[in-house]
Amino acid sequence: MANEAMQSAYQTYLNELFEAKLLIPSGVQGVYGRSGAFENVVSRFEDYVTRMGADKNPEVVRFPPIFNRAHYAKIDHIRNFPDLMGSVHSFIGDTKQHADMLHKFESDEDWSCCLTPSETMMIPAACYPLYPTAADTTLPAGGRTVDLEAYVFRHEPSIDPARMQIFRQREYVRLGTPDEALEHRNYWLECAKKMLESVGLAVTAVLADDPFFGRGAKIMKATQREQDLKYELVVPICSEEKPTAVTSCNYHLDSFGSKFSIRTADGETAHTACIGFGLERIALALFKTHGFDTKSCLHRFEKFWR
Amino acid sequence: MANEAMQSAYQTYLNELFEAKLLIPSGVQGVYGRSGAFENVVSRFEDYVTRMGADKNPEVVRFPPIFNRAHYAKIDHIRNFPDLMGSVHSFIGDTKQHADMLHKFESDEDWSCCLTPSETMMIPAACYPLYPTAADTTLPAGGRTVDLEAYVFRHEPSIDPARMQIFRQREYVRLGTPDEALEHRNYWLECAKKMLESVGLAVTAVLADDPFFGRGAKIMKATQREQDLKYELVVPICSEEKPTAVTSCNYHLDSFGSKFSIRTADGETAHTACIGFGLERIALALFKTHGFDTKSCLHRFEKFWR
Repeated sequence: MANEAMQSAYQTYLNELFEAKLLIPSGVQGVYGRSGAFENVVSRFEDYVTRMGADKNPEVVRFPPIFNRAHYAKIDHIRNFPDLMGSVHSFIGDTKQHADMLHKFESDEDWSCCLTPSETMMIPAACYPLYPTAADTTLPAGGRTVDLEAYVFRHEPSIDPARMQIFRQREYVRLGTPDEALEHRNYWLECAKKMLESVGLAVTAVLADDPFFGRGAKIMKATQREQDLKYELVVPICSEEKPTAVTSCNYHLDSFGSKFSIRTADGETAHTACIGFGLERIALALFKTHGFDTKSCLHRFEKFWR
Repeated sequence: MANEAMQSAYQTYLNELFEAKLLIPSGVQGVYGRSGAFENVVSRFEDYVTRMGADKNPEVVRFPPIFNRAHYAKIDHIRNFPDLMGSVHSFIGDTKQHADMLHKFESDEDWSCCLTPSETMMIPAACYPLYPTAADTTLPAGGRTVDLEAYVFRHEPSIDPARMQIFRQREYVRLGTPDEALEHRNYWLECAKKMLESVGLAVTAVLADDPFFGRGAKIMKATQREQDLKYELVVPICSEEKPTAVTSCNYHLDSFGSKFSIRTADGETAHTACIGFGLERIALALFKTHGFDTKSCLHRFEKFWR
């Protein structure tokens, strides 16, 4: 599909989602309200994820959509994905400074210069706030498995309904030995593929890379592929030729373990891996595949959510 | 309680919550992870809210934690509560500008000056993103009732565990005639009081005001009180003398209706009202009142969540 045809396919599907009132426009690309029907599909798919992960006895942890700026500074995001970041800024001035800011605001000048970076950043992935909480710890024998869900932020305004600026990831994260981490990544790659197929999605597993920024991007991507670190499960949503990643399975080597001094029971630097289900994208793939009658869709796959 | 004793009571309860692993510290005051046990209590209370609101047949809508900056600019928040805002800033530069930012970052200089205000702001209340989506519409006869839940942001770092920077509000919003809006506010003030009492909380309804900023604050607060607009349901958490607002019932007059040109079926400017349950505060009040054994707490009040 040529780029123009693609843009038109995105716009068409987005309009359909608005008309079906599954998504609610906000005037900002990639920032939408979700209807109750949309949320039901997300919740039922989450139930399925919970059921399929239950035998691993994961610790359940939920983080809010912002995290410690000092932790952000440790994860190389500013180097690798600066164009996607969200930095939270606040006003900490007095009444005089407030008057100055209001004057700028009312004169349609840039008032953001009156703000100060706060203690927090938007979280770029559901598992990023987790690793700092494990900093300077030794994992129990057998490592840890953690169940996460959070709203994550990526500054990439787009008319592709599946490319949201703010969306939810449901994750299972493993912290442990290299073998434990890699086994987790591989197990969930298989399991998630079967799950997505079972609800009627035409899913393919592909070796993938992250959208690194700038001049070093090409080498970073090539290295990531050579090391066999990232797989995505892709499904056609608006295009057969350019399917959308709805789930991502990642082996981080000792990247987080070494940044946050997380050790395994035998004293080695911990390795980590995660699977992340892109909940909005999965819902959008289900609607595209099975239509907008969410009740019938939920009913059809009832046995999986239960 | 003197201020010093209060601070110490906050710190004690916060430490207890960390030790019980109900909250997980992040190194930033008011930004915490939540355990599965914590989330279970929140979910069950939400079930209770859903059940109690079911006869009103509310539209269910969920907004993400950020919303359109242009909508933020219309709601007077920058005038009244500038100190609480969260503005999302992003990097939109090229590789040269990225190198400059990285140089600042690595030299421990302020790199935030390399960022640009993005299209979005953190949402300060769960219902703020709703009104713009109703802009320039005429409500159906009988108005609208909307069920919302969202993570909201308030920049007020504090060691009071109940004063979080990022927390969830569950709301029922009414858009309609003055009578419909006021009836909604009063109905839910009564209903929520009974709900909170039914789960064993020592709740009191009090006339309240919002934390307006600056020189005009005193008058704004007095006016709000004179007009009988805001009630809070307060419960002692860390202090009997300074109980915590866990639920807020607000009548906005035609404030949002006029800002966003929302009309009633008979052509008048719509009035709005909302009830907002502070979900984290309710959970913290339940733990303080009934102890940290969340299973026993959930079991004890089972009939309400069902």
